[in-house]
Formats: sequence, structure tokens, C-alpha cells
Amino acid sequence: MFTAAIAGASGYAGAEIARLLLRHPEVEIGALTASGNAGSPVREVAPNLVPLADRVLAPTTVEELSGHDVVFLALPHGHSAEIAAQLPEETLVVDCGADYRLEDESAWTTFYDTPYAGAWPYGMPELVRSDGSRARDALRGARRIAVPGCYPTAVSLAMAPGLAVGVVAPEDLVIVAASGTSGAGRSVKPHLLGSEVMGSMSPYGVGGAHRHTPEIEQNLGRAAGSATTVSFTPTLAPMPRGILATATGRLADGADPATVRAAWEDTYAAEPCVRLLPEGSWPRTSDVLGSNVVEVQVTVDERVGRVIAVAAVDNLTKGTGGAAVQCMNIALGQDETTGLPLAGLAP
Amino acid sequence: MFTAAIAGASGYAGAEIARLLLRHPEVEIGALTASGNAGSPVREVAPNLVPLADRVLAPTTVEELSGHDVVFLALPHGHSAEIAAQLPEETLVVDCGADYRLEDESAWTTFYDTPYAGAWPYGMPELVRSDGSRARDALRGARRIAVPGCYPTAVSLAMAPGLAVGVVAPEDLVIVAASGTSGAGRSVKPHLLGSEVMGSMSPYGVGGAHRHTPEIEQNLGRAAGSATTVSFTPTLAPMPRGILATATGRLADGADPATVRAAWEDTYAAEPCVRLLPEGSWPRTSDVLGSNVVEVQVTVDERVGRVIAVAAVDNLTKGTGGAAVQCMNIALGQDETTGLPLAGLAP
Amino acid sequence: MFTAAIAGASGYAGAEIARLLLRHPEVEIGALTASGNAGSPVREVAPNLVPLADRVLAPTTVEELSGHDVVFLALPHGHSAEIAAQLPEETLVVDCGADYRLEDESAWTTFYDTPYAGAWPYGMPELVRSDGSRARDALRGARRIAVPGCYPTAVSLAMAPGLAVGVVAPEDLVIVAASGTSGAGRSVKPHLLGSEVMGSMSPYGVGGAHRHTPEIEQNLGRAAGSATTVSFTPTLAPMPRGILATATGRLADGADPATVRAAWEDTYAAEPCVRLLPEGSWPRTSDVLGSNVVEVQVTVDERVGRVIAVAAVDNLTKGTGGAAVQCMNIALGQDETTGLPLAGLAP
Amino acid sequence: MFTAAIAGASGYAGAEIARLLLRHPEVEIGALTASGNAGSPVREVAPNLVPLADRVLAPTTVEELSGHDVVFLALPHGHSAEIAAQLPEETLVVDCGADYRLEDESAWTTFYDTPYAGAWPYGMPELVRSDGSRARDALRGARRIAVPGCYPTAVSLAMAPGLAVGVVAPEDLVIVAASGTSGAGRSVKPHLLGSEVMGSMSPYGVGGAHRHTPEIEQNLGRAAGSATTVSFTPTLAPMPRGILATATGRLADGADPATVRAAWEDTYAAEPCVRLLPEGSWPRTSDVLGSNVVEVQVTVDERVGRVIAVAAVDNLTKGTGGAAVQCMNIALGQDETTGLPLAGLAP
Repeated sequence: MFTAAIAGASGYAGAEIARLLLRHPEVEIGALTASGNAGSPVREVAPNLVPLADRVLAPTTVEELSGHDVVFLALPHGHSAEIAAQLPEETLVVDCGADYRLEDESAWTTFYDTPYAGAWPYGMPELVRSDGSRARDALRGARRIAVPGCYPTAVSLAMAPGLAVGVVAPEDLVIVAASGTSGAGRSVKPHLLGSEVMGSMSPYGVGGAHRHTPEIEQNLGRAAGSATTVSFTPTLAPMPRGILATATGRLADGADPATVRAAWEDTYAAEPCVRLLPEGSWPRTSDVLGSNVVEVQVTVDERVGRVIAVAAVDNLTKGTGGAAVQCMNIALGQDETTGLPLAGLAP
Repeated sequence: MFTAAIAGASGYAGAEIARLLLRHPEVEIGALTASGNAGSPVREVAPNLVPLADRVLAPTTVEELSGHDVVFLALPHGHSAEIAAQLPEETLVVDCGADYRLEDESAWTTFYDTPYAGAWPYGMPELVRSDGSRARDALRGARRIAVPGCYPTAVSLAMAPGLAVGVVAPEDLVIVAASGTSGAGRSVKPHLLGSEVMGSMSPYGVGGAHRHTPEIEQNLGRAAGSATTVSFTPTLAPMPRGILATATGRLADGADPATVRAAWEDTYAAEPCVRLLPEGSWPRTSDVLGSNVVEVQVTVDERVGRVIAVAAVDNLTKGTGGAAVQCMNIALGQDETTGLPLAGLAP
Repeated sequence: MFTAAIAGASGYAGAEIARLLLRHPEVEIGALTASGNAGSPVREVAPNLVPLADRVLAPTTVEELSGHDVVFLALPHGHSAEIAAQLPEETLVVDCGADYRLEDESAWTTFYDTPYAGAWPYGMPELVRSDGSRARDALRGARRIAVPGCYPTAVSLAMAPGLAVGVVAPEDLVIVAASGTSGAGRSVKPHLLGSEVMGSMSPYGVGGAHRHTPEIEQNLGRAAGSATTVSFTPTLAPMPRGILATATGRLADGADPATVRAAWEDTYAAEPCVRLLPEGSWPRTSDVLGSNVVEVQVTVDERVGRVIAVAAVDNLTKGTGGAAVQCMNIALGQDETTGLPLAGLAP
Repeated sequence: MFTAAIAGASGYAGAEIARLLLRHPEVEIGALTASGNAGSPVREVAPNLVPLADRVLAPTTVEELSGHDVVFLALPHGHSAEIAAQLPEETLVVDCGADYRLEDESAWTTFYDTPYAGAWPYGMPELVRSDGSRARDALRGARRIAVPGCYPTAVSLAMAPGLAVGVVAPEDLVIVAASGTSGAGRSVKPHLLGSEVMGSMSPYGVGGAHRHTPEIEQNLGRAAGSATTVSFTPTLAPMPRGILATATGRLADGADPATVRAAWEDTYAAEPCVRLLPEGSWPRTSDVLGSNVVEVQVTVDERVGRVIAVAAVDNLTKGTGGAAVQCMNIALGQDETTGLPLAGLAP
């Protein structure tokens, strides 16, 4: 048995990690910490976590987090570095924030207002590189892991196979994604009120302004083995969870539907948390609701010369908390899917 | 390890049982059968069941269902008797239909058009009787179990404590409940289209016409130790899952808020799948989404002399499939919550 | 042509009045005022009001509101009196707040924390009294009108006919209602976030704690001609607009389904904004979405001796803004439905 | 006053036309016809149309439709030609089906299985051509009009300005759009059940398979003055109404953000039913819910060299029924927006 603490357990990401760990056979939940909600019982901030209802949230301090085998950080960006630096090297620290995702300091400073903290092994095990290796390799035995963003998870796993094999051109990738509202966290803003979002869709961060853009380009660049350019448009959808990402790229010279299909099939044949659907079926976010699976489909529009790949993911599960647990499993030498739901909650 | 077959695995209830059994450490899923969908792979009817995607649905026959330790029947009402009669007595048969729930033949014939099949031990372990016993007692070692209806689960667990202790009068109970659309199953009817139900609420089966009415009265009558009269109004709510039941009854002579509170606290203090919320908190269906917990709260409106009890339940989990697995656990001598999620999926 | 000002135009109620007046053939929209949002263009607070997009919100002062034939007050409770007192007697002031609804000062002080302001003619034209008169009578030529609350509108119009005729007993009325989230206004509270409310239902203000309770009792008492006792439980439903109210009362001695049906038919036969549905059909909130119609149905559950009446209303239209315009029409001697939509937006 | 008949009044498009005509000051609603629902009262198929509740649907025959000034056809594709041919030339026939939209017979036969019927004046008044003219020109005095598809409305009005002025390159347009479920009509299919669509998003018709693709290319080709190639991916969103279209195209050589902005501003400055939002604001489908306005915004992602234009429209109003009425107004010489709502229903 391992012990795990969660910093930021009152947020959606932290609470999701707790939900998953409750059913993990090898993990005992230790400290649950928060900042503004410290001192409150869990039931007041995450009433769904019934088995933890009467646990009291501790303040997010190094003292509270110390003494665990694993520490999950689910904090606002810019807050992980100070804590991580004070935790022992042998403690597995899994950061769900953006802080350690970007390898390019200038990309960080363009989109964030806190100092650049560096890059940790990137927690998207299935991400394929142009040399055929996977990001998983760097996670085995790691003690510091950066969990990917939710949009980058959907988008990268949708399109990376084609770039890695070279059947999709790396320039002029065009991506539109729809996310449920929990992607914005529990922040209380007028445009996130139920009255405003139910029955409505709207875009935001249009024109390259969304912070996940450099992370997407980093991932797809690793897959392609060269720089990529990505037009990324996120939209807000009237559902609490789920991301549906539609990613398109130009069909590379010499590629055809058969080579495209083969690229995706070969990449994901042995992946336990990525399901490439049979031809003709398309992903649906409810099918991965609460599960650690990303569903992917791809097709070629030969008339216009574009490959269209679509992925569905639960932004809080495989998009954040589930990926964190999956990475923990890998780092600790457990079976990768231990404790993780692979069936979604539809209907 | 036990083996379990599911008859009617293409319906919402059957698929939910499969979803739960996938994470049950003591059960191996055997035959999955269907009628109209026999021959189809699971992925075509329940694409969320990713680990079972390529399993093919067998026809619902005694031959396919034989040879398992447990057989779950998730069939349209009136179809269970013929199959159950042909399964060995030592096989645990858990029926999710209405067929074996009612003890009163006339109640059956008033609401159903198939022959009365009798009554099996009633699968609501937490239901308290006026003598303080629980329905659980009859489930230990049982080999035939009738899983309750979804509305009766929410309503009965909301109000039974007050009736059993005598702080609520048994006559003139008034109940209004809202259900997500999956309660209607996968039947394709115009009024269940997404375009029709999203953003809308409407009642149905008003005036005592809903088939769950006699089951509710049976349960509450067992609790009260005398006949009850129930005005039950179900409504259709714009959500896929969840029931919120508001049950009111007259405060009995001599009862007061303290004795009411004590009745509920005493009844549920040791129940693992019923959570009585702290005073001032109220149930929310999303907090039990996908979980086997029913959340309950009660208060007294002294000015008007009514007790108001509210319960939230996931109609497919604790309302059907989860209850079926919970009953199986009891019948087989397992820990009652083995394999069952107790944390809901909110947000 | 009349000119109309709206105080509180940045709130949901005020913006709804503006939406309706935009299509009113006899009204020209004058000042639009706000408090915190004063100085902002309409498009920033109510982007749906396209024809008013570039109008700038003025501060809510008597100066800005003066000089109009009609002033609509859509302010937080407790803020209407000061302004109303300074507006000329000949100005028609239509208050959408709670301030002037209650005739009983003690009822006000029990539920509100501001001084009691008195009672104005009550803006529910269709409300029937035990003597057969309607609340409409007091609105003709009135220059001060209190628009009803949204729940009271649905509940009162559902049940008043039976009380007025005496086929429903006035004591022990039990009411459960579901409301869309816009009923809570644009206030930014965590439990109203889209992530929290979508796919979920929950009760609030249980046990007689909701502020609309005394207004409901006042209305039903007027209908009955005697005091009524009401158990009222409101619930929050996952939709932006709409109220579905289920109201039940005991069938009076000597009453039967025919006399019940006749009471409702007689009461609403000539009402342009109340539609009693044909027997067997039930109201649906989407059918009155954005319209000034309340749909009503009633039935008798003879077995348990209760009358069940259900009403559907758009809380912002007939539940607030539409009622305000309807009352204005009556007060000004216009046809009652002038400018008001009578067809809902379903699907 | 003009008289108008609606063929197919039991479908969503037909019922929407009726909803709009109910408030049109110059139109009297005549025959309402249906096929399978002929003989039913309107209340059974469109209960929201309260003022028409007791009107009985006539069979869809030339006899029933004759004698009106205007006939709206809201029929399944392939059914309009036979009826239209028998209506007098002087009758204004407005077809909401696809039958007369495509000028290229081969495009029709690729996507439809009925004979090609030809092309009528295209009912998108605001569509700009490379010569600066508008589609409106052909509608004045027309007696046969083809109402555009809902996706083509959103997509074409989003992107046409840039193509017409030459600031967007005509090749390699990439479009992803999300539609509410009413776009699929009232057809009763399992994947359109509320239980399946609520809380979920999924794509369909991916890879150029959607029937609206050639219509989109036709429109954008008219704007560009040359052939365009369009990758179009539609997705199904969990809302009853609304389309959000995200259209991207490569920034043309020599174009920049200022010339892009100017193109859109110049195109839509005088259009009453298209609102180009102020810079920094983005369309939201709820803001145009039930209204005849399309909201548009555009920006340039200079880093990747793409123009991103977004449009929001109510698929049943401006996307179908409202456009039909708008076209009628133009053809009959009325003010273009007569009777049409320009404010949406948000929240």
C-alpha cells in the first residue's frame, strides 16, 4: 500500500483524484489540503465524496503534505514550484497544474504571469514520438511528473499518430474543441452560471489566445519530429464534463486512407487507455464519462485533402485526475490501469 | 470468484450491471444476452462498456444463461418468470423487472397485463419495518431476489424511518419525484427525444396511474405496520440519470423535530449505502451520480404539521443495477458494498 | 404610444421586460438603468437584446426614471419603496420585486429584513376569489402594481379554481415545484455554476423556509375565502427557465372529478393567458418557454382523496416580465395581451 | 394582409414558421397541413403553439394549399417539386427543404436519392458575392424561393465577407460546427433520445459526408468568385436549438487584421439580421435563441496565418423558419424584419 496526499482537494481536479483513489486497491488516502477551504469538512466542498464526507481539509503546507509516498498537486498555476521544491526527492510528486508542462521557457512566459519553473516528465503515456517511442518511457520510476492539460490530452492523442508516421503534414493543423464547463474549474464567474451556459455554446480564447496552445504544439511537434503550427479554437459546451476535439491536418504527399488508418491502428493497438473505434463509429463524450479512456476515430476527406481525427475524453478523468493516477501507477511500477474505470457512465 | 450472466444486457439496466461488475473483484462476467440485439457486439448498443466492446450479445435463452453462479434478469416486465422457472434453484437469480416485487396479486393485475408471478425476497436491504427488522434479513442466502423499482427506492428510503417509528402518520402521504430520462429505458418514443426533453419538465402518470405506486405503498406499509395511502406524482426532468424524491407526511401526534431527526439517524446510522446528510444540507442527484448511495434529508414544517423527507438516487445505480449487485453481495455472503462505487461523479 | 423605463435592466427580470417591450406596438423603451452596471452598454450585460446593444445603462435614480408613462422596477427586494415614493402618482409603477406583494406586515417581517412597504394591487389578473371576482379588477386604471413572484404564479393559478369553488379543502395543501436556475437571478454563487446544476436536481428552502410561501398562502387564501396552510418545497432543476408546479389538496366533501373539472374549466374559459389543457394532456415547461401563457391541468386521485393540479410557466415571462407587461396593458386600457407572445419556443 | 399556408406544419421547421407568423402583423395563417399527422389537432404535435391548439392539420395536398398568397413548404427533401409544380406561378412558394438549393445537378445527385429539381433564388439575403452584390437582389418580387440549410446559414454568413473581399484564401477552408438536436428534426432515432444526447457531444457526417457540404461550397464559392474547398465537420451538441459554427481560412497574401476587420464591417454594416460583434466579444447561441439574428465575430491568428470566423444562429429561426419569413417579406415588398424577433431568449 502507498499513501497519497492531495493538495487542492477542494477543486474539481483534486476531488476527482480523490474519487479515483477511493477505489484504488493499492493506495490509502492521506492528507487532503486546501487553501481557502482549509478547515472545512470535505462534504461542504465535494459532497459527492461520501466516504470522505467527514474528513477535514487541512491547509496546503509542506508539513501536511509530508510523509506520503505520493503527493498530488492540484493547485492554481504558479503555486506548485514552491511546494514541490520542499518535498523530498524520493516522494512522487504529480502536478496537475500547468507549471511543469512546457519545455520552452518563452512559451511559458507568453501565456503565464509567474516565473518559469522548468519541465518534468510529461504524463501522457500514450503520446507517440516520431521515433516510435512513447512518453511513457520517461515516467517509469519518475518522482516528478507533469500531468497534461485536458485539451492537449484530447487533441494530441487524436492527431499524434498521423504526425509520427508522416501521413499528416505538420503545418496548418486546424483544431476546434468543445469542453464541458468543469474545465474552467470551480471559479465563480458570471459567464459560467448555469443560467448562462445551459442550452448555449460559445467560443473563447480564439485566435491562438488559449494557454493550452503551446502545449498542444509541443506535443504534436514531438510526434512530428518538427515544429507544428496549430490553429486552436476552444468552445464552451452545455455539459458539466467532457471534451470533444476535432483535429484536422493536411494529408501528406503519398499518404492515403489505408496508410492513415494503419498509423492509428498501429499506434494504439496495445494502449489500454486509448480506444480507436471501428471504422464508421465516432466518439461520444458520454461514453467516456468518468472513465480513463480516450476514444479516437480518424478518417480522410480525400476530396479536400485533409485528415480528420476526433477524440472524446472526460476532462476531469483521463483529462486530469485519471491521467494523474495512471502516471502514478506507472511511476510506482503498478499495472497502468490499476484502480481506474475503463467503462464510461453513459447514458 | 463467481460467474454472472446478464439477460437484457443491451438495455440501460443490464448495461449498468455490466458496468458495475467490470470492477467487482469477485465476479467474472459470463454470458451477456439480448433479444432484438442478439448477435450484435456490445459496442453497438452500449459503447461506454469499452472493456466489453467486442463481446457479442447472445440470445436470451436458458441455455445461454445456464452454468453461472448468478443470473441477472433485466428484461421487460412479464418476461422473467418463464426463464427463472428453468434456472436451477441453486442459481442466484436477481430480477430487475417488476415481476416479483408485489405481494398483492390484485395490485399486480391492476397495473400490469401479464399473469401474476408471485413475490421474491425484496432487494432493498435498508428498508426498515415497524418491528425494527430490515429487508436485508431475507436476502442472506437467498437464491431469488426482486430488485426494487427506482422510484420506490428513493421514496421508500426517504420516508420509511418516520413511519417505522411512528413519528409520521401513515395516511395521506404526498410524494412528488423527478426522474432523469433513462428511467424510461431505451425505448424510442417521440416525447423522449432530446429535442423534447432538454430544458423542459413535465409530469406523467399523475393521479395514481404510475405502476410504481403499489410498490411504494407496499414498502411504506411494511414500514408503518399498517396500510398507507400515497399520492404519487412522477415528473420527467432534463437530465439523463437521477431521481429526486420529495416525500411528505403528517407529523404524528406527539412527535416533534427531535424525535423525527432521531428516527432517521437511528435507522441509517449503520447503513453503508444510505447517507443521512447533516442538518441543513440537502441531497443533490449529481452527488450520487453513478454511485450506490442514496442521500436522504428530513425536516419538519411545524407550522403546517408535515414532515418533509427528500432522497436523491441514481436511478440506474442504486435505483437498479447497483441494488442488484448489492443484493448479490448479501446473498453470496460478500461484504455488502464489494465492488460498488460510493462516491458520485459530480460535477 | 407610451414611454417606459426599466430600473434594473441588467438583471434577468429587467432584461426580459426589455425583450418583450421591443415587440410591443404601443410602447417606446426609454431609460434603462442599473446600479453596479451603470455606464455599461446593454450588450455587455444582456447580449441577447440585439436591438438595444449599444444603449448605455444609466444609474438607477429618480431623475433617470422620471418623465416616462411607465416605470418598471426590477430591483432587489427592499429597494423599490424609496424610488416609488418619488415618482409622480400618475406614473404607472410596476414593481417586479417582492416589496408590495404581501398584505400582512408580519408575513413580510418574518421573511425579509427590510421595512414593510405596504401592498399594491396584485398583478395576477387571472387569480380568482371565492366571490368569483378576479384580481384583474383592481388593476384597471391602477398606477401602482405589484407583480407576483414566479412560484406563486405557477402555484396559485394551478390550484385557485378548486379553492374558490370549494372542491378542494383549504388546509393541508402540499406543493412541490421545480424551477430553472434563472429564478435565482444573475447572482454569482457557487451552487449556481453550470458545472454544479447541469444534470442535477436538488431542493432548497425546504420546510416552509422559502420566501414565496406567505405569498402563496395569501393568494390561495383569497381564492378559498379562508386561511390556507401550504407545505411548499421548491427544487432547482437543470434548465435555464421554467417552473413546473405540482399542487395537491384534499378533495372536499361532496366534490367529485366532474365538479373539479368544471371548476377549472369555468375559471379559465375566458382567460387569454391561462390554458387549461384537454384531459389527459399535461403541461410541459418548454411549451411555454418565452411565452406569457401558463398551462394548467388537474385530475383527481379518488383512491387517496386528493386533487392534483399542475402548472407550467416561464418564470421570467409569465412568471415576471410578461406579467408586468400584461398588467401594464390592463392598467393603460390596452388589450391585455398586446405585444405578448402566446406561443412558446419548444423544442 | 396576406394569407399563408404551411405544408409540413407538424415538423419542427413548419411549426417554427407558424410560431413566427402568429406575431406577423401582415399575415393571416391559413391551411396547416401534414402527412402522417393529418387529422390531428395542432396541440398534439406542437403543443407550444397555444393560439393554434385546436386547429386541425389538413392533408398535404394541392387543394388544401391553394388559394393562399404564400405557401411555405417544410417537407422532407424530394417532396417539394410535385406540389410546387401545381401551385400557380403568382403564388409565393418558399421551400424550406433542400430541393431547390443546389445549382449543380451533380452535387445534388451525389448527396440525394431523388431527381434533381433545379435551383430557385437562394434565400440568404445577406450573402455577399465577389462583385459586392447580395443574394437579396434575386429575392425581390420572386415567387419561388429556396430557404438555405441551417449549417450553410451559419457557415456562409461567418466567412463570406473575407472571401468576397479576397482577404481569405478560397482553398482549404476548415469548418467545425455544433448543432442542437432539433436540426435532426422530429425523427425518432435511438441516438437522438434525451438519455443519449444530454451531457454528450459527438461528431457525425465526418469527412465531407454531410449533405450540407455542397451548399456551403456553393455559397462560399459565390462569395469568392471561384471554387472553394471545404472540410466540414458537424457535431451534435446537448441543446435543443442553436448552431455555433467555427470557420477558418488561410489569410490571403497581403491581408492583415485591419483589412479583415474592415471586410466584415463593411459587409454587415447595414444588415438588419446580421450582427457583427464588437472586437473581443464572441457569439453565443443562447443570445440568438428564437431570434432571426445571426451573430458573427472574426479574428486573425497571425502566427499561424488563419482567419477564424464564428457565427451563432438558431437553427430553427434564422436557420430555417425565420429566414423563410424574412424572404417572404422581401418578396412581398414588406420591410425585411417585419414580424421577426431580433432579441434572443437568453438566459
